[in-house]
Amino acid sequence: MTNFQHCRSPELRKFKAELEERYREFKAQNITLDMTRGKPCAEQLDLAMGLFDCVDHSHYTAEDGSDCRNYGGLDGIAEAKTLFAELMEVQTDEIIIGGNASLTMMHDAFMRAMVNGVGENGTPWKLLPKVKFLCPSPGYDRHFFVCQYLGIEMITIEMQADGPDMDRVEAMVAEDESIKGIWCVPKYSNPTGTVYSDAVVDRLAGMQTAADDFLIFWDNAYAVHHLGDKPAGLRNILTACKKAGHPDRVLIFGSTSKISFASAGIAMMAGSKANMDRARKQISFQTIGPDKLNQLRHVKFFKNMAAIQDHMLKHAAILKPKFDAVQQALEAGLGDKNIASWSTPTGGYFVSVDTMEGCAGQVVQMAADAGVKLTPAGSTFPYMQDPLNRNIRLAPSFPPLDDIRVAMDLVSICIQLVSIDKLLAA
Amino acid sequence: MTNFQHCRSPELRKFKAELEERYREFKAQNITLDMTRGKPCAEQLDLAMGLFDCVDHSHYTAEDGSDCRNYGGLDGIAEAKTLFAELMEVQTDEIIIGGNASLTMMHDAFMRAMVNGVGENGTPWKLLPKVKFLCPSPGYDRHFFVCQYLGIEMITIEMQADGPDMDRVEAMVAEDESIKGIWCVPKYSNPTGTVYSDAVVDRLAGMQTAADDFLIFWDNAYAVHHLGDKPAGLRNILTACKKAGHPDRVLIFGSTSKISFASAGIAMMAGSKANMDRARKQISFQTIGPDKLNQLRHVKFFKNMAAIQDHMLKHAAILKPKFDAVQQALEAGLGDKNIASWSTPTGGYFVSVDTMEGCAGQVVQMAADAGVKLTPAGSTFPYMQDPLNRNIRLAPSFPPLDDIRVAMDLVSICIQLVSIDKLLAA
Repeated sequence: MTNFQHCRSPELRKFKAELEERYREFKAQNITLDMTRGKPCAEQLDLAMGLFDCVDHSHYTAEDGSDCRNYGGLDGIAEAKTLFAELMEVQTDEIIIGGNASLTMMHDAFMRAMVNGVGENGTPWKLLPKVKFLCPSPGYDRHFFVCQYLGIEMITIEMQADGPDMDRVEAMVAEDESIKGIWCVPKYSNPTGTVYSDAVVDRLAGMQTAADDFLIFWDNAYAVHHLGDKPAGLRNILTACKKAGHPDRVLIFGSTSKISFASAGIAMMAGSKANMDRARKQISFQTIGPDKLNQLRHVKFFKNMAAIQDHMLKHAAILKPKFDAVQQALEAGLGDKNIASWSTPTGGYFVSVDTMEGCAGQVVQMAADAGVKLTPAGSTFPYMQDPLNRNIRLAPSFPPLDDIRVAMDLVSICIQLVSIDKLLAA
Repeated sequence: MTNFQHCRSPELRKFKAELEERYREFKAQNITLDMTRGKPCAEQLDLAMGLFDCVDHSHYTAEDGSDCRNYGGLDGIAEAKTLFAELMEVQTDEIIIGGNASLTMMHDAFMRAMVNGVGENGTPWKLLPKVKFLCPSPGYDRHFFVCQYLGIEMITIEMQADGPDMDRVEAMVAEDESIKGIWCVPKYSNPTGTVYSDAVVDRLAGMQTAADDFLIFWDNAYAVHHLGDKPAGLRNILTACKKAGHPDRVLIFGSTSKISFASAGIAMMAGSKANMDRARKQISFQTIGPDKLNQLRHVKFFKNMAAIQDHMLKHAAILKPKFDAVQQALEAGLGDKNIASWSTPTGGYFVSVDTMEGCAGQVVQMAADAGVKLTPAGSTFPYMQDPLNRNIRLAPSFPPLDDIRVAMDLVSICIQLVSIDKLLAA
């Protein structure tokens, strides 16, 4: 192994020639691999096939006797609220069960804020001259797209080892009342795998904000999506907000998209009863109620939190070897070359790689030219603009293990080649 | 039978005494019946139980080979678009398949108009000093609630035998550019059962509007929901709009809520390709895609339009006797008393009764006091205000036939009693 940063040019050129030969060989194989999105693989989806058997000709009735085939039940059947309130660590009157997508519930919460404001007397955001949102980055592209779509100005906040840079967050929200909220994926964050520390949770809950309608969008997408033996803990944000005297500051989101079926899971939103009551009132104009049969399926299949935890061990057994393969390939290819660093997540769906500055875009392009599709460079930052052009998101869940080994081999070759060019040009 | 309008007071008092006695007998029975909402009954839902068998351990793949359990497919699987495009009488690129509720698709279309405007350069409605909507009435309360929720001023338009009063509609929209659209339930309208005539469809499509972003919200909720032997036709509004040079004027909505399962059906929105493309672009910020497994269930169960039509005959066989019972009771109780008129719908879910002016609220209250819950008086008008306080919506689908006979007997007693009081006071 060699630290590229300490190599002289002739040595780098030698490496480059070897790597180019290997790159050409890859290209000649005409492979087609996709590591762009955090999609579950078929084996994971197979784990939940029992869902198909849970509702049938004689099982379509909720515990209260109501017919789940018919209208009614604005915010979910009682047993779904009970089960998922436990998953979200809230009370049953602090949760709303939605359709198949938590993204929809987040988007719709933004739309309600745009049109009607937040809280009882909040000004509709659409009527404000400027609305800004804090975006810890690298982060989730679909979060950022919602803001961009709605003309909400995004401010990039550095993601640190224990969560967003809270010194900067606190300083900014205290000053600027046009900052209306912050996006958070607090556990196994997309893409860095970061788990917010207790201190960060408490600071988010307790900080003084110039905006009195400041909202934390707490997308706890990976609450039970552990990869290792030691599930990470996460301080309860709603409890923290209540303790800090800001009970209405947080909206919590989750789903079973990566527990049961990605297309046909159950989404949920949670928060203070006051927030949920306001949301329920507004949602009553949008729907008579969500698909109750699918809720019933989920309750009958998963039964309780212990069974969900067990189920997630089966997911982990499928995912862990894939994540290990990524680590092994990165270590083997880039080990002590000192040209890249990467996350070693203990849960979630992604590995985040930081190349040398200015290299990410070219690496993704080179990989694509050789048949391996990665998430577009920049995707993990607001406006698709990575200021240092160095972050690459790897999504190893979907492809088969062997494909991941091939893809990662190529990725590490691309990173080396682009880095060498950069070093040679320096 | 007796024309109450021609009776003298002593005669009316005699009728009143008899009716009061019957009313007291009803009250003593402590019945509890609900005719408030257009809910399918269990027997209707049973018709679609085959849906449960259509997706299972070996059937979860779309025709194009994609796994319906996984992410993807923003606007629906191809075979669902094919089937429901036929139901909506549009092309497959003119339809978006949604979740379980057409109300959600309508609400969300309003939200997009509020936040982003209509068309490429439309001003967001939220930024306009005033937005108005035309509301043919009696109409559907949930339509009106959406407008009220969003602060959109509703203008009541009289519903006539062939649709809304088009003379008034044309005059108003030509003058007032703050009128941004009209709500329509064009077939078996809720609650009057009205079917829009070809002339009305053409006038809606062709009329000159001061607003260049005028929208027809065409809620074709009862497209195939016939009760009789002769299904009503309805001129294709999208074709009419295209012919008239206003292809983007209409958004069409539909669902299988009253074809398959009310809670777990499939909703759809249709319109010009340009309108659908704009919507698809915006919906891509809201969701990765709808529940594809439920789409697959519907496609496998219903297969084609002929099968849907056959299926609807089974619904009609259940509903027709209930609607007949309503007609018989109204005829028997109120026949030639000249104190009420009512619709005789050939499809849909409702019967609309007009009492003498000023009587509806009291009738609904009296019925409730004796255990029969009707839709609140006023519900069929904007702001829950029936200017003549005379319209009552009857929803006979859900209760058993015997209950409907009982309920309608009571309703006709209440109408007579309230009418007599009004006549005596005159």
